[in-house]
Amino acid sequence: MRIALGLQYDGTGFAGWQAQPNGNTLQDVLESALRIVAAEPVRAVCAGRTDAGVHALGQVVHFDTVSSRPNNAWVRGVNSHLPVSMAVQWAAPVSEEFHARFSAVERNYCYILQMSPVRPAILAGKVGWIHSPLDVDRMREAAALLVGHHDFSAFRSSECQAKTPLRELREIAIERRGHYLIFRFRADAFLHHMVRNIVGSLVSVGKGRHAPDWVGSVLQSRDRAAAAPTFSPDGLYLASISYAQRWSLPEFQPSLIEVITRS
Amino acid sequence: MRIALGLQYDGTGFAGWQAQPNGNTLQDVLESALRIVAAEPVRAVCAGRTDAGVHALGQVVHFDTVSSRPNNAWVRGVNSHLPVSMAVQWAAPVSEEFHARFSAVERNYCYILQMSPVRPAILAGKVGWIHSPLDVDRMREAAALLVGHHDFSAFRSSECQAKTPLRELREIAIERRGHYLIFRFRADAFLHHMVRNIVGSLVSVGKGRHAPDWVGSVLQSRDRAAAAPTFSPDGLYLASISYAQRWSLPEFQPSLIEVITRS
Repeated sequence: MRIALGLQYDGTGFAGWQAQPNGNTLQDVLESALRIVAAEPVRAVCAGRTDAGVHALGQVVHFDTVSSRPNNAWVRGVNSHLPVSMAVQWAAPVSEEFHARFSAVERNYCYILQMSPVRPAILAGKVGWIHSPLDVDRMREAAALLVGHHDFSAFRSSECQAKTPLRELREIAIERRGHYLIFRFRADAFLHHMVRNIVGSLVSVGKGRHAPDWVGSVLQSRDRAAAAPTFSPDGLYLASISYAQRWSLPEFQPSLIEVITRS
Repeated sequence: MRIALGLQYDGTGFAGWQAQPNGNTLQDVLESALRIVAAEPVRAVCAGRTDAGVHALGQVVHFDTVSSRPNNAWVRGVNSHLPVSMAVQWAAPVSEEFHARFSAVERNYCYILQMSPVRPAILAGKVGWIHSPLDVDRMREAAALLVGHHDFSAFRSSECQAKTPLRELREIAIERRGHYLIFRFRADAFLHHMVRNIVGSLVSVGKGRHAPDWVGSVLQSRDRAAAAPTFSPDGLYLASISYAQRWSLPEFQPSLIEVITRS
C-alpha cells in the first residue's frame, strides 16, 4: 500500500532532507517515526530534497508499507514520534502509480527577506536578512528577465544532479510587506540552489550593484561564476507541490506564513 | 549615564527574564553582552519580567554605566555578543529620572493561538495551539466583561509579587486570521500570569465549556481556583511598552509578527 503525506518542518538544525549515515536529516527523523507506527522499516520519497536550513510548508512524501492503519495514525500517531519542528499535516492512501517526485507538475518556493538595520531575533533562521534597503522595482525588472523556459546553468550549484539545466520558471512575484520582501517562485522544477542563487542576484540588483539587465546577461552566460553568491537558506520555504487532480490529494493546509503571504 | 534599550527576543529555551544563580535567563545573557561593550559590570532593569518561554517584540530596559559609547555600540556592538534569539533594536541615552519599569504608563501583550487538528511545526514554541475550533463571538462577549478597573485576583498567579491586584485592563481585542486567533491586551500593568490565565478562561468559553457570563463571575469571585488553568506561554509576546512623550524614546520597530497583527 502506498501512502502520501503532507509535511511541514523547520529545517534549522537539520542537515537537509536526504538521509545520511550519521542521521540528523529530515528523512532520517521521519523514517524513524514511520517505522514505529508501521512496525516495519519504511523508505520515504519526497517531492523536493531541501538543503540544510531550508524549511517546508507543504513538502509531499510517499512511502510503501504492508501495514494497514487509519489515516489519523499516519498523522497524529507519527507526529507523536517526531521532534516539535516537524509535523505531518495530512495522510492519504494513493495509487501505486503515484510518485511524490515524478508525479509533481509544479513546485512553489517562497523566500522571506527582512530588510532592517538590526538582525532578526524571534525569527532568526526563519527569514533572510539584509542590512541595506533594496530597490524593489529594479528587482522586479530583473526578475522578469528570468521568467520562461531557459537554461539555468548560471544559477545551478556545481553539485546539482539534474540531467538537464532546462527549467520553466513560470513566475517570480516580489511583494513588499513592511520591513519584509516576500518572493514567490513557481516552476516545473528547480535546480540545486536555483532559488537561493536567483535571490542573491536579485538582491545584488536591488542594492544598485548591478543594473537589472545584468541578470539577463548572467542567464545568457550559463556560467555559475557570473551570478552573485548563493543567498542564505534562512528565509527559504518549499511552499507547495502541485499534482494532477486525478491523484485526489487533500488540499494544502495553510500555516502562519501562508497567512502572511496570501492574505 | 543612563541608557534605554529596545529588545526583541524568542523566549524559547530561556528560564524567563529574571537573573538566576545558574544563568540561562534573558537578563543574564543581556548583562553579559553589555558588560563586554561597557567594559564594566552592568545591571539591566526591564519594563516587564517575562516568564520562561514568553517572547518580546518590544521589551524596554535601562541600565547605568560610566562608559560613553555611540548608540550603535549599544545596538550592533551588543548584538554581536548576544545569542541569535535576542537582539537590541535601538538604544538612547535617557534622563536619570527615567525608569524602564516605573515610568511605563501602558503595556501591550499579544497572544497568537493556532486552531488546527495538527500541531504547529515551523512556529513550534511561537504560537499557542488548540485542536478544537473556538467560537470567537462568545470569547469576545466574555472578554468585554474583563475590560475596566478591576480586582484581578482570580487571574493572578499565587507567586505574584504585586502590591495590589487592582489593574486597569483597557482593551482585549480578538481577531481571527485564517487558522489563527490574535489576542491583544492593553493595560496599565499586568499581574503575574494574568494574560495566560485570561486566555485560558476565554478558550474555555470558546470551546463551549462555559457561558460567556462565567468569566464575569470568575472575576467577581477573586478566587484563582475559579478560573481555567494557565494557558501555554508559547504564543505570548510582550508587544510594546508605552512611556510619556517627554522621554523621547525612539519609535518601536515592528517585526514580522507586528506585520501580521497590525496590517
